[in-house]
Amino acid sequence: MIDFQGIIEDIHEDLKNDINRGLVASYIPELFNIDTQNFGIHVKHINGNSYAVGDWSIPFSIQSISKALSLSLVLPIYKDAIWERMDVEPSGNPFNHLSLLELENSIPRNPFINAGAIVIADMMVSHFKNPKQVFLDYVRELSNDQTINFNYNVAKSERLTGFGNYAAANLLKAYNNLENDVDEVLDFYFHQCAIEMTCEQLSNAFFMLANHGKCLQQKERLTQSQAKRINAIMLTCGFYDEAGEFAFEVGLPGKSGVGGGIIALLPNHFTITTWSPGLNEKGNSLIGMKALELFTTKTNLSIF
Amino acid sequence: MIDFQGIIEDIHEDLKNDINRGLVASYIPELFNIDTQNFGIHVKHINGNSYAVGDWSIPFSIQSISKALSLSLVLPIYKDAIWERMDVEPSGNPFNHLSLLELENSIPRNPFINAGAIVIADMMVSHFKNPKQVFLDYVRELSNDQTINFNYNVAKSERLTGFGNYAAANLLKAYNNLENDVDEVLDFYFHQCAIEMTCEQLSNAFFMLANHGKCLQQKERLTQSQAKRINAIMLTCGFYDEAGEFAFEVGLPGKSGVGGGIIALLPNHFTITTWSPGLNEKGNSLIGMKALELFTTKTNLSIF
Amino acid sequence: MIDFQGIIEDIHEDLKNDINRGLVASYIPELFNIDTQNFGIHVKHINGNSYAVGDWSIPFSIQSISKALSLSLVLPIYKDAIWERMDVEPSGNPFNHLSLLELENSIPRNPFINAGAIVIADMMVSHFKNPKQVFLDYVRELSNDQTINFNYNVAKSERLTGFGNYAAANLLKAYNNLENDVDEVLDFYFHQCAIEMTCEQLSNAFFMLANHGKCLQQKERLTQSQAKRINAIMLTCGFYDEAGEFAFEVGLPGKSGVGGGIIALLPNHFTITTWSPGLNEKGNSLIGMKALELFTTKTNLSIF
Amino acid sequence: MIDFQGIIEDIHEDLKNDINRGLVASYIPELFNIDTQNFGIHVKHINGNSYAVGDWSIPFSIQSISKALSLSLVLPIYKDAIWERMDVEPSGNPFNHLSLLELENSIPRNPFINAGAIVIADMMVSHFKNPKQVFLDYVRELSNDQTINFNYNVAKSERLTGFGNYAAANLLKAYNNLENDVDEVLDFYFHQCAIEMTCEQLSNAFFMLANHGKCLQQKERLTQSQAKRINAIMLTCGFYDEAGEFAFEVGLPGKSGVGGGIIALLPNHFTITTWSPGLNEKGNSLIGMKALELFTTKTNLSIF
Repeated sequence: MIDFQGIIEDIHEDLKNDINRGLVASYIPELFNIDTQNFGIHVKHINGNSYAVGDWSIPFSIQSISKALSLSLVLPIYKDAIWERMDVEPSGNPFNHLSLLELENSIPRNPFINAGAIVIADMMVSHFKNPKQVFLDYVRELSNDQTINFNYNVAKSERLTGFGNYAAANLLKAYNNLENDVDEVLDFYFHQCAIEMTCEQLSNAFFMLANHGKCLQQKERLTQSQAKRINAIMLTCGFYDEAGEFAFEVGLPGKSGVGGGIIALLPNHFTITTWSPGLNEKGNSLIGMKALELFTTKTNLSIF
Repeated sequence: MIDFQGIIEDIHEDLKNDINRGLVASYIPELFNIDTQNFGIHVKHINGNSYAVGDWSIPFSIQSISKALSLSLVLPIYKDAIWERMDVEPSGNPFNHLSLLELENSIPRNPFINAGAIVIADMMVSHFKNPKQVFLDYVRELSNDQTINFNYNVAKSERLTGFGNYAAANLLKAYNNLENDVDEVLDFYFHQCAIEMTCEQLSNAFFMLANHGKCLQQKERLTQSQAKRINAIMLTCGFYDEAGEFAFEVGLPGKSGVGGGIIALLPNHFTITTWSPGLNEKGNSLIGMKALELFTTKTNLSIF
Repeated sequence: MIDFQGIIEDIHEDLKNDINRGLVASYIPELFNIDTQNFGIHVKHINGNSYAVGDWSIPFSIQSISKALSLSLVLPIYKDAIWERMDVEPSGNPFNHLSLLELENSIPRNPFINAGAIVIADMMVSHFKNPKQVFLDYVRELSNDQTINFNYNVAKSERLTGFGNYAAANLLKAYNNLENDVDEVLDFYFHQCAIEMTCEQLSNAFFMLANHGKCLQQKERLTQSQAKRINAIMLTCGFYDEAGEFAFEVGLPGKSGVGGGIIALLPNHFTITTWSPGLNEKGNSLIGMKALELFTTKTNLSIF
Repeated sequence: MIDFQGIIEDIHEDLKNDINRGLVASYIPELFNIDTQNFGIHVKHINGNSYAVGDWSIPFSIQSISKALSLSLVLPIYKDAIWERMDVEPSGNPFNHLSLLELENSIPRNPFINAGAIVIADMMVSHFKNPKQVFLDYVRELSNDQTINFNYNVAKSERLTGFGNYAAANLLKAYNNLENDVDEVLDFYFHQCAIEMTCEQLSNAFFMLANHGKCLQQKERLTQSQAKRINAIMLTCGFYDEAGEFAFEVGLPGKSGVGGGIIALLPNHFTITTWSPGLNEKGNSLIGMKALELFTTKTNLSIF
């Protein structure tokens, strides 16, 4: 029997002195002003047990982690029609690059680069009258926690500074890969990214991906095949242009965000969420990456 | 003594049967509905003589030709500070590509790719309270014709469909190479491109570039050095990714627009404007290119 | 208990009528003249059991599958020093493209694009007096079969037509990422790719990667961590620019070759080799890809 | 009447103190060991007069300047068939980049990037039994000087270190845009670049391009149209990715080489050659560029 609690406490102890070494995202004040001392880990085992250490109960901006959640919401609705508008290949490029998008006629490489996530957001806007509320309700249900909410200041700041996303959305529109108005789609997208969740809430929300599609309440949210596919995309594309490195060092499907959060999981076993706001040069949490590497080494649990 | 009138009449006769072979720009209805039968040539000699044939007195949408005019307005104001925000190298890429722009940190390759022209437009918006009126007055003075005006429907259609330009402007903004609001800059830019002029008006407006900077009224608009530099940029960058071909086949500095117009000039000798709406696959007037090639061959006048 | 033998027989039956739909590699006569009717599957279970159907005992050219074997030979020798000369990120580009290589100063994206495999070959040449014999002995030992050999005609044909590889090797040399002579390194590389093996021999040779580093004879060839890392690279980079698709559809680490072979594996469970020479447009065996997709669907065994 | 002798003496005086500021090409010892103090200018007027100052009579390695000479030799033979194997557009990229070449299916952008010049060399090898002797004889005739010769040590050093050129040639071969053996073509190419000439000899050799195709001895080497076309290519592509800058600052067709030489010309007026081994970061002679800029400013002679 693996002592999960002991292991994450050891990791927390080992790494907490390195917390200040990364750089916090600086493009909006709400992220820049986060206390870099925050460091939390939360594990949700498939058998229902929870293990946690540090600042696992403080909400933070989930940012790009939301892309995996919006994909999981849209996939059962649009099914394979999604893949007519984007691909599932790693991008091999930093996350904000438009170059490949243009060269490839506005077919985003995968649903986790910004352009791909914007197309997913476009599907949300096309399919739902009130996509923001639908998405928020979905995340609350998955996490079994009605307190989860948007940080409207973050959404507003993203809107005021998100020129790269406006560029991407307009490029998609220019190539007929965006059905709705650029402003309407991005309004949803910026709110989706601006949800705040704790490590615990994220571990719970992603439980379905470790549990063959069934969420915490054992309700089938995804077919087994859909869960498997999202996991595959998380492994190959979940960490910007550091996806190969993460698969290599950690060996788990996962998704990171510039708010400093990382969610990872081992099918049939557990989900794990780490939060530490300091980022490495690729935009992934520096301490979170190390914590997950230590976790798979110490538990000897990885997909490989 | 060269018989300019005879030469352009011969060229007009030779080519008029090929008029229908190109394709008219189709992205906005105002351009798409142009009668492809239009074909005009107008030559303005440095000695004041004019020669004309065909539809030289019908106004058409000058589109990208306006980029050379806005550069000529901004250059005496901003001088070399312009080149801190863009380069003077050929792009080697189609005119709407954002890739290079992103790879090169939003320093546009030259003032004639859309992104470069948008930066010039940004300078207009920064420097003038009413840039649209200033630009229109400037063009009217150069052409000595107060009837020149914007086609507001064209400007509106460009705004409604110009997603590629919105993408470029937002990308410039993301990299801090745009001082003003994206919408404000593009509003000016779309009007600048939507001016309508005749072949004669264009030949007159560009007279200063063949005349060492002095316009039709012999007023110094540009220093000799500035005129020379704009000519150099027109030669190397004036025809999208067909600039080398134009230099090779025609051998004159020039600028084309998707409205089917081409202005070209030989310093100390003449300006020449052709108009035929059918475009080749690179977006340059098919018949216009041929007419200019014939013109330099028959007159034996080129810079090379 | 899963009926592996029944499952692969069903798959073989289901797919054998589609055998002729792919295209055989045509760049060298030895590959072009392969009988496309060949179709074999071989499974080696971690418990020692074997299951096989069709042409599993006919040797074929392993081609790029050899890249995983050479990496496994070099990794315990050079250890992390390997990653100073190449990366572990997916390339996001077709397998023969030099562009990224040049843009990234000759640091190949991963050990499975040709340029990366050539750097691994360079390490072999630097470290061993007779790298060809060392490599052959290694493969024979892993497979427990001394009959395995090079096809010298294939190696010779590759040398006479491998201009793309010469281009890559010279580019590496130009950027100081090749220690030995281009010709010497490529001579080894072409032989490495020209080894012929059966499905059974490949399933046996890759056994160590499903068995935490211990080969068929239970000798430790790789540390557990090294085996895990090679698996991670196979998952993210093993199928040219179709790696994401393979992870998505199949969900196993694996490696393909233009000879029509594919090896895949599930750690702790099995290795599986398929062979069908007809390729899809990405250069992977068309029927092999489908067979593996059916296999993971029917057995419900994948890493996700 | 312009005082050419006085002007170039002034320029020489003005710039000689800046001679040491550039960096000498360091990839082969023969170029690296050049005395950076060398600085020569030579003007050949269309009327037959010559003007010279400084080290105009010392031979130096012409390097890429030879590309314009080989093009002028091949053009009358292959005529427009040349343009089926390469284009005439500026590359917009540094001179040794293979990326565009690969993306564009091995059609070099123009005859002055290395890949394009290698295709021209391939034509020489296809058409002549002894292309090296033919080329040397051609250059000697143009310059009216039988003392011109290869520097065999330079050719040998280029061969031993020219991995980038081997990469380009192999890539061309891979895409069927090279008829002969890579080694044979590059042997010619390295010798072509290794010719040594003085400023005077270069001014004389390029006389035909300023004289409508007729060489110093008034023999027609090129048709007027062919001369015009080579001039057009020199203007748009003659200075690596600084061609736009050169057109902008100098305004003359020209060609530079990493040996520190630059040849430029004004049709109907003159050829001018400068030599100063220190290079700027783009690989063009730092002092040579400045000297030519001063020359066109002081004489007020440029094509624009």
